[in-house]
Amino acid sequence: MKRLKVGLIGTGYMGKCHALAYGNVRAVFGNVPAVDRELLCDVPMDKAKEIADQFGFARATDNWQQLVSDPAIDIVSITTPNKLHKEMAITAIENGKHVWCEKPLALTLADAEEMAAAAKKAGVKTMVGYNYLKNPLIAHAKQLIADGAIGRLLHFRGFVDEEYQADPSLAWTWRATKAEAGLGTLGDLGCHLVSIAQELIGPVASLTADMATVYPERPMPDGDGMGKVENEDVATAICRFENGIIGTLSSSRSAWGRKNHLAWELHGDKGMLIYDQERMNELRLFQNEGPVSEQGFRTILSGPTHPNYAKFCPSAGHGLGFNELKVVELADFLKAIDTDTRPYPDFDAAVEFEKVIHAIAQSAEEKSWVTL
Amino acid sequence: MKRLKVGLIGTGYMGKCHALAYGNVRAVFGNVPAVDRELLCDVPMDKAKEIADQFGFARATDNWQQLVSDPAIDIVSITTPNKLHKEMAITAIENGKHVWCEKPLALTLADAEEMAAAAKKAGVKTMVGYNYLKNPLIAHAKQLIADGAIGRLLHFRGFVDEEYQADPSLAWTWRATKAEAGLGTLGDLGCHLVSIAQELIGPVASLTADMATVYPERPMPDGDGMGKVENEDVATAICRFENGIIGTLSSSRSAWGRKNHLAWELHGDKGMLIYDQERMNELRLFQNEGPVSEQGFRTILSGPTHPNYAKFCPSAGHGLGFNELKVVELADFLKAIDTDTRPYPDFDAAVEFEKVIHAIAQSAEEKSWVTL
Amino acid sequence: MKRLKVGLIGTGYMGKCHALAYGNVRAVFGNVPAVDRELLCDVPMDKAKEIADQFGFARATDNWQQLVSDPAIDIVSITTPNKLHKEMAITAIENGKHVWCEKPLALTLADAEEMAAAAKKAGVKTMVGYNYLKNPLIAHAKQLIADGAIGRLLHFRGFVDEEYQADPSLAWTWRATKAEAGLGTLGDLGCHLVSIAQELIGPVASLTADMATVYPERPMPDGDGMGKVENEDVATAICRFENGIIGTLSSSRSAWGRKNHLAWELHGDKGMLIYDQERMNELRLFQNEGPVSEQGFRTILSGPTHPNYAKFCPSAGHGLGFNELKVVELADFLKAIDTDTRPYPDFDAAVEFEKVIHAIAQSAEEKSWVTL
Amino acid sequence: MKRLKVGLIGTGYMGKCHALAYGNVRAVFGNVPAVDRELLCDVPMDKAKEIADQFGFARATDNWQQLVSDPAIDIVSITTPNKLHKEMAITAIENGKHVWCEKPLALTLADAEEMAAAAKKAGVKTMVGYNYLKNPLIAHAKQLIADGAIGRLLHFRGFVDEEYQADPSLAWTWRATKAEAGLGTLGDLGCHLVSIAQELIGPVASLTADMATVYPERPMPDGDGMGKVENEDVATAICRFENGIIGTLSSSRSAWGRKNHLAWELHGDKGMLIYDQERMNELRLFQNEGPVSEQGFRTILSGPTHPNYAKFCPSAGHGLGFNELKVVELADFLKAIDTDTRPYPDFDAAVEFEKVIHAIAQSAEEKSWVTL
Repeated sequence: MKRLKVGLIGTGYMGKCHALAYGNVRAVFGNVPAVDRELLCDVPMDKAKEIADQFGFARATDNWQQLVSDPAIDIVSITTPNKLHKEMAITAIENGKHVWCEKPLALTLADAEEMAAAAKKAGVKTMVGYNYLKNPLIAHAKQLIADGAIGRLLHFRGFVDEEYQADPSLAWTWRATKAEAGLGTLGDLGCHLVSIAQELIGPVASLTADMATVYPERPMPDGDGMGKVENEDVATAICRFENGIIGTLSSSRSAWGRKNHLAWELHGDKGMLIYDQERMNELRLFQNEGPVSEQGFRTILSGPTHPNYAKFCPSAGHGLGFNELKVVELADFLKAIDTDTRPYPDFDAAVEFEKVIHAIAQSAEEKSWVTL
Repeated sequence: MKRLKVGLIGTGYMGKCHALAYGNVRAVFGNVPAVDRELLCDVPMDKAKEIADQFGFARATDNWQQLVSDPAIDIVSITTPNKLHKEMAITAIENGKHVWCEKPLALTLADAEEMAAAAKKAGVKTMVGYNYLKNPLIAHAKQLIADGAIGRLLHFRGFVDEEYQADPSLAWTWRATKAEAGLGTLGDLGCHLVSIAQELIGPVASLTADMATVYPERPMPDGDGMGKVENEDVATAICRFENGIIGTLSSSRSAWGRKNHLAWELHGDKGMLIYDQERMNELRLFQNEGPVSEQGFRTILSGPTHPNYAKFCPSAGHGLGFNELKVVELADFLKAIDTDTRPYPDFDAAVEFEKVIHAIAQSAEEKSWVTL
Repeated sequence: MKRLKVGLIGTGYMGKCHALAYGNVRAVFGNVPAVDRELLCDVPMDKAKEIADQFGFARATDNWQQLVSDPAIDIVSITTPNKLHKEMAITAIENGKHVWCEKPLALTLADAEEMAAAAKKAGVKTMVGYNYLKNPLIAHAKQLIADGAIGRLLHFRGFVDEEYQADPSLAWTWRATKAEAGLGTLGDLGCHLVSIAQELIGPVASLTADMATVYPERPMPDGDGMGKVENEDVATAICRFENGIIGTLSSSRSAWGRKNHLAWELHGDKGMLIYDQERMNELRLFQNEGPVSEQGFRTILSGPTHPNYAKFCPSAGHGLGFNELKVVELADFLKAIDTDTRPYPDFDAAVEFEKVIHAIAQSAEEKSWVTL
Repeated sequence: MKRLKVGLIGTGYMGKCHALAYGNVRAVFGNVPAVDRELLCDVPMDKAKEIADQFGFARATDNWQQLVSDPAIDIVSITTPNKLHKEMAITAIENGKHVWCEKPLALTLADAEEMAAAAKKAGVKTMVGYNYLKNPLIAHAKQLIADGAIGRLLHFRGFVDEEYQADPSLAWTWRATKAEAGLGTLGDLGCHLVSIAQELIGPVASLTADMATVYPERPMPDGDGMGKVENEDVATAICRFENGIIGTLSSSRSAWGRKNHLAWELHGDKGMLIYDQERMNELRLFQNEGPVSEQGFRTILSGPTHPNYAKFCPSAGHGLGFNELKVVELADFLKAIDTDTRPYPDFDAAVEFEKVIHAIAQSAEEKSWVTL
């Protein structure tokens, strides 16, 4: 296997996640190419140097263009604010780099599609940070469905809620603007939910939706009056998947008490699956099997019989953490690069997810059903 | 207080619930009129006599017209199949009886409105069996909301699922026909959810909906081919309440593993409430109060500090059962009769609930928003 | 079936429970003798009359001796403070009455044994209020064990905690004295736990124990200094059952947050059962069956496939309440009277339970193993 | 800060955990010395080389004596079977290395004390792998206790169960022998529980205990008859802590369904704390505060307001995994080395934990109370 050299742009939470994943992916998985943490970009230069040292990167830069065109670099990680993804990703792609980009790809669907087209044209590999897909229990759920554990699928309900915009006294930020942030809760959270729904069931065909800005104004940070919140705090859609299954997709960024409530239930004609990301090491399964007096939802704890878990731990119930999902994501990316196969979810797949959130916004504005 | 004599029509599950409530309501509550179990109606007469003896009723009949016109009777309980409610209730009302009727009032909204009009005209008291409203924890939730415990209301999600139609091999019955059963899951379950949503938030103003018959055919009981299922197994609506709050209402009668999953979450700008009828003695409350490091959802166990609980038990956490909700319902009805005040929910209130389920069906058929 | 006339002594919480059970037992069960609520005893007479009227008793008295010797009475319910049980029960028994007595039978084991001997001599039927045994899910657990669902039994852990003595500022009462109350948490709560352990596993053979009075003093109610607490707030034993199984029995009456935490886990060589009375309609079962990747604890909701549940409700997951356990208890008692069979748990059985709590106290005082 | 070079002995699960911790500790924490993965030891040499490459170690050896005496090495990680710890650790210590050793230190208390004495004499730093202590929520619990959140401590119950020896058909291994494995469940699991109890409450002063080998024989791996199991599958103690608090400590390695059930509850005179390692990102807190009608156990999700969590993730509820506890453990060790302070828990602390498990075994054998 060829060693791969990586460049990382951005050192916020997701930047750190990428760095940690690079640091351990080979120790965890074994059968992936070795990666060298080569170049880290942040501004100003002092910060870049300091964090490069902490994160174990050999060099630092304050110029992302330099990073994406550095001939030594094989893979570029983009973890900057969403509005910057497009230019950085396309430039990196045009320089022949493989790109690991955080979600959502872009503020608009058109921009996301442009990014996907650029990657296709350049023939590079891409990966998008829909990390919840990488949970061993989500992979297990998918396998259970394929094996018929809950029978023919009938009905889906999915939610993704956090509380980071629940406090009405929080100051106005750029996140409240369409120009800087694009969609609200749909872009931050909703696209994760779509990625899961699509993973489990397939593409969404049509939907009707509503959305609400529950705090239409927020105090300006300088104490000077109120600023308008342009994007949605809450959004809900009723959808039909291509296979006819009826579903609900709902998201709030203003949900007190919810830290990472990416939760769903999937009804089948033989059983049901239930999941909540806040208990990411548990999957609940009901099956219409055995004596009725003994039936009930079973709480399955994640363990080495579930995909990839054993790479981290040989014992069930010890629990993976959020950051470890990024290691699985990276392993998948590295394997795809190494074997010249399609990574999942790449830019094309991400476009499919992000189509849905834009359709939800459109339906909510038009007050009518939208066909995808 | 005047003693009241009651007649009961129907001896299925709800008939038994009514009988048990009559048997104990005064022992439980004290401050309600004494009731005499006077006359019970079922067919054939042998069965009526046997059950009258078991249920502690003095007399039996196999003729409901006789019961509703018996001069000794003050209150008539109607627990027969839904399609029979209308004629029985209106006849009883026209005979000047107070009527305690199971839900939904009728198969169509027009019929329900006719029943409510009859009661209004006759000036009798009515009560409809939306028993989940009577849970001490629902009353407590309502009080918490009024006291501002979760602040301004922002968002509601409600569900009501059971599994009684989850098995695709279950035989076709009259429940599958619009003529005999009216709506499907909306009529059986959905109206309960609406009653709770309205109790906590207020009237629904508009909605968009979808519904699905996940088992379009069921085997005929005689083994002779398949019968068509005319009404819905699953229905979901996105709604706006009159006060602008955005909400979701969703119901399935084909949800494996769910026995009585009447569950909801109500988001406010200071906190959240969560409830699931399958754990009817628990209410979960999150409040944005105190140090963030100590915040979390609190599981409140029902106890004597919650409305009416102390009538049943002086100790918290001992737990009420489903049947005891009917005792509260009856106590409310008897008090309203005794004090000549309006019972809740009476036929008028039930019409308001049932309007919503019919609007959901209409929106799903028309594929457009419906205004109530 | 002969109709039976009952007399009730005591109208506190347990008195009300008995009254409610008498009021509904035949409507619920059908196949039990009809009971007439004949005579109620409390003091003063005004209170007795008022409550007799509320509880549906035909007559009232303020003299318990009169009640237990009234020739019309077949069954006497004793729900007075524990120290009064013995004299009332023995007098009733000597008058040929069947006796339904609340637990514990008496303050000392010698007294309890005397009561059991009196009942044996008189040949009357007795029943003791170990109501948690009557939960359909406990009966189901017992059946599961008998059916080998968890294999050979290996290990038991049981707890019973409440918070009624958790507040250090609560005033001193007679409950703190050995003379008036006997044991502390062991007598109030611990004996319930023993009843369950014995039901599931069998008799306890030996044990080592410790106990603590975590609030050795409490403020006197008149504000005049502190009063000594003579009995235990917390007690824990490690035991061996006669069949060799190792177990733990632990109880606290000073456990903040616990309302009715009668909880246990039973380990077998094929699985495990877990139960908590605060969720009395749930039983958790793990079985080493099927693919490891799908194993997990199953949450069984109580339903009509569990013993006696269907008498109350034909639908699973609707939930029974605490008071309904007393109805099952009474039904068992009435059936035993009707068929002249042994009721369970009668005075003899209760003596077996209560032996264990006294042995725990003895071991804790002697700091050594005690053999029963 | 001086860079530190590490040598790792053993590449099983714990070896991998150490390797991952070394790989990321500085990226996670920043303020710790950089570590170089210098030398890895396993047998045979081919395996050592292969894993050194995977784990990112510069060199490999198949000779542990060589590793512990290599002048380039500053820190030695020992993750070999327990019976090997003593010789490896003492040799490393005598070569002036800091030692990070997995738990338990040794098979006997005498051996553990010898190891601690060697470390003291040599003046090196030591750390023992009691990783559950490092959970941000355990640190938070400790802080809550110190802040009086649950008031004066009254009562503790702790459990640690797994199912790795639950299957009676599992073959006999060296784990079943006292000579090779020492204690059974007490050594594998029980010492973890003691570490938590001591962290939260303080030292244990005395105890009475029982233990059982629930599978006294296991099939020999070669199919040739049955082998004797010499050590305990289940052990339970009732203890008194030095501060007088009464407690229970119980462990089973044969508990079907339990994957990592290191669970405890701590009762105080103002509230209660509850924890279960299988939900390691949740801490439950009850406080006797506010209206009784709103009291309940609060489920606190781990987040950046809890010690060290923010190093891994800025968002609450995203969840840490088991492996990340080892990163905290290593960070604590590196900081202690860097600042020449006492690491916790070092060999001395571990001896204190391990004293208790040996006292439990002694009490169970002697059938009497043991004073520590």
